[in-house]
Amino acid sequence: MMVRNYEILNEKVYSEKLENGLRVIIVPKPGFKKTFACFATKYGALINRFVPYGETDYLDVPLGIAHFLEHKMFEMPDGSDATDLFAKMGLDANALTNYLMTGYLFSGTANIKEGIELLLDFVQTPHLTEENVLKEQGIIAQELKMYMDDPNDALHLGLMKNLFRAYPLRYDVGGTLDSIIKITPEYLYKCYETFYHPSNMILIIVGDIDAIMSNSTNSHEMLLDLIRANQAKKVFKKPLDIRKNILVEDETANKSSGYAKMDISIPKVAVGLKLPFEKYEKNDAMMMELKMKVLLEATIGPTTDAFQEMLDLELITGNIYYDVYTDGICGFIKIQANTNKPKQFIAYIREKLLSLSNIKLEEEVFNRFKKSLLGNFLRALNNLDYIGYNYLEYSFKESDVFEAIGLFSKLNIEDLKALEKYFKVEAISDYTIIPKNMLFSKI
Amino acid sequence: MMVRNYEILNEKVYSEKLENGLRVIIVPKPGFKKTFACFATKYGALINRFVPYGETDYLDVPLGIAHFLEHKMFEMPDGSDATDLFAKMGLDANALTNYLMTGYLFSGTANIKEGIELLLDFVQTPHLTEENVLKEQGIIAQELKMYMDDPNDALHLGLMKNLFRAYPLRYDVGGTLDSIIKITPEYLYKCYETFYHPSNMILIIVGDIDAIMSNSTNSHEMLLDLIRANQAKKVFKKPLDIRKNILVEDETANKSSGYAKMDISIPKVAVGLKLPFEKYEKNDAMMMELKMKVLLEATIGPTTDAFQEMLDLELITGNIYYDVYTDGICGFIKIQANTNKPKQFIAYIREKLLSLSNIKLEEEVFNRFKKSLLGNFLRALNNLDYIGYNYLEYSFKESDVFEAIGLFSKLNIEDLKALEKYFKVEAISDYTIIPKNMLFSKI
Repeated sequence: MMVRNYEILNEKVYSEKLENGLRVIIVPKPGFKKTFACFATKYGALINRFVPYGETDYLDVPLGIAHFLEHKMFEMPDGSDATDLFAKMGLDANALTNYLMTGYLFSGTANIKEGIELLLDFVQTPHLTEENVLKEQGIIAQELKMYMDDPNDALHLGLMKNLFRAYPLRYDVGGTLDSIIKITPEYLYKCYETFYHPSNMILIIVGDIDAIMSNSTNSHEMLLDLIRANQAKKVFKKPLDIRKNILVEDETANKSSGYAKMDISIPKVAVGLKLPFEKYEKNDAMMMELKMKVLLEATIGPTTDAFQEMLDLELITGNIYYDVYTDGICGFIKIQANTNKPKQFIAYIREKLLSLSNIKLEEEVFNRFKKSLLGNFLRALNNLDYIGYNYLEYSFKESDVFEAIGLFSKLNIEDLKALEKYFKVEAISDYTIIPKNMLFSKI
Repeated sequence: MMVRNYEILNEKVYSEKLENGLRVIIVPKPGFKKTFACFATKYGALINRFVPYGETDYLDVPLGIAHFLEHKMFEMPDGSDATDLFAKMGLDANALTNYLMTGYLFSGTANIKEGIELLLDFVQTPHLTEENVLKEQGIIAQELKMYMDDPNDALHLGLMKNLFRAYPLRYDVGGTLDSIIKITPEYLYKCYETFYHPSNMILIIVGDIDAIMSNSTNSHEMLLDLIRANQAKKVFKKPLDIRKNILVEDETANKSSGYAKMDISIPKVAVGLKLPFEKYEKNDAMMMELKMKVLLEATIGPTTDAFQEMLDLELITGNIYYDVYTDGICGFIKIQANTNKPKQFIAYIREKLLSLSNIKLEEEVFNRFKKSLLGNFLRALNNLDYIGYNYLEYSFKESDVFEAIGLFSKLNIEDLKALEKYFKVEAISDYTIIPKNMLFSKI
């Protein structure tokens, strides 16, 4: 088992690739009561076209299929539900699908070894029938309708459709009402066979490994043996390179503006900047997110003059939210607020974003926001779920959380200059949700 | 007027942006009898979605519309044809549309000033009616059918469809039989208004400027005055930034292999490597093409051991052709030959391409092929059409032909290492055309 020490952060990470290709990551957290484990595949809503395992031609699958498959994994061949089995052990289980990954996770304070076995077992026994797929279509349709009625979700999706013309971020992770009815057990099995092969998956365990293994010597090796034994009982096909095909995009936004009406009382606005496809090398994705966050925090964050000005001019009614996202392929920046002056807010934020095509930040300001971002991260290292989940998510983006944090701490103000090229007028779009009785021309 | 001297090449280039946005480039070639002029717009088959001049929403236009518009420009409002008018002056006129640009050009030895005026005038007077568009649909349909019957065109397009899933290189510049019937005068005018604005165009003139201007002092300024006066007579709208939207792609080929049957006697094969979208800075596009050419010439060119081996093994029946293309957005490498052993040829070329993921080239070999490429270029500088056309083409790819050649002459063998990342199995595809009576499984 390979061990890496991140001395500045005082973190240690054990890593091993099993014979079947499964990567196991163990992050020891001595003294912590809780353990977090997540078993994840590099497969999410981004992938709707791929060559199924053992085949030669590309297959287009319905939108939302990764999320659909996640729902169905909990159903066990004997009719039981994996969530219930975890609950009986006193463990909290859950799952999530995003654009990049599908993860199955649990946390708890006892029965961790049993939990890990159950986690591996239930994810490695798909049980899909015509009947249970049909039932799930109804359940997911309800879930999608709920999202569609949520103004924040509608705002986000509206902005994404404005930014992207074909890249899957323009669709909900869950797909659409039209797409999910096309999902069949056959499609699901093809996705499962291709993306749930151990060689496309990572298992991460964060916690007091010595305590889990009853203080045996070399506890991380013992834990690995348990996982090895579990895997050895199962038969896997030969690992194959997965061929997937995603339509990527340049920096030009699909539409520059748009709006919708919903049953709300104060208009909601999101302004977005498209981050185009480019080659991300190791740690680039995480560094991009961190650098952009410093820049946004220093430009419109709550301690800036700009923020005070927006309050004074009544361009915002309260807080302002921003988000920086990249999946290591494409990405976006989103700035969102509730406002009674949507058009003025949009103009203000657009101007601020465009001003970043020539970054003029003072050393002192840069260092202050860099430190605050680092501080947030170091505090988060006490949160096992946060470490485990983020380590996985960034692994799939070819970034090492601990390494990137080390690199980020050495960042200079000059390193931000490379971001200037992203702040172009054609990369920007906005989307507004207004109350039903309002006229868009009047806002 | 700005002048740049490229001392190593002994070339001088005058450049000026007129008030209406038109860029004029004058390349003096003292002592040359012939003059070459080309008036071109940065608008070709890549663009099928854009915001029309004065509008706010994106418009999808039928495939092949840039090429269609080129055909129609020669028709003059008074019923005459511009080609005939050039011919009467003793000038040879022509036009071309590729993925990146549409150019109108003429060359000749006398009446150059008149030719330049006619060139500007005919391109700046669109004449499009329901009737003449309908007639042109029939003409272009014939042209497309001719291409479809050509085995080399079919081979190229087959490979492009294998490499690209959505990027417009997968379509013929002329569009499809289905798309051209959808073209209307209204669509054509929207394309014209948007992309034929002077601010999106370049006029280049290559020749003995002193002789053209009857040996007046400051002949290039006099020539510019003539162009200025011509433009001053016309009314143009305000220049606007053009918003266009192209689906770009990552390095994964759409399909890894494919074939078709045609009425030929020896199979034809093309092996392609996809060059993904990435940010091209100034001169990158031309440097990419040049570096790739050196690499291919040194790997499978006619003086290599590999070429001899392919002949000995009877993998090729004669020459081998390769092409390197980038439009500054995406691109490809294509290697093509006639062969009686298609599958073995494909396997051989694939292996050669993959071996370039670790470039091992001797200094001496590199310098030899670099010199030969440079030599070809320097010889080509005597060809006015070549200079004029290439200068334009590369301008639209943000590359300066003379500058890039200077940079290329300073290239080291180590600079090729950066190309290694492109040579990946998932980026490669092949396409074969076999004789009608042959079985693909038997080749």
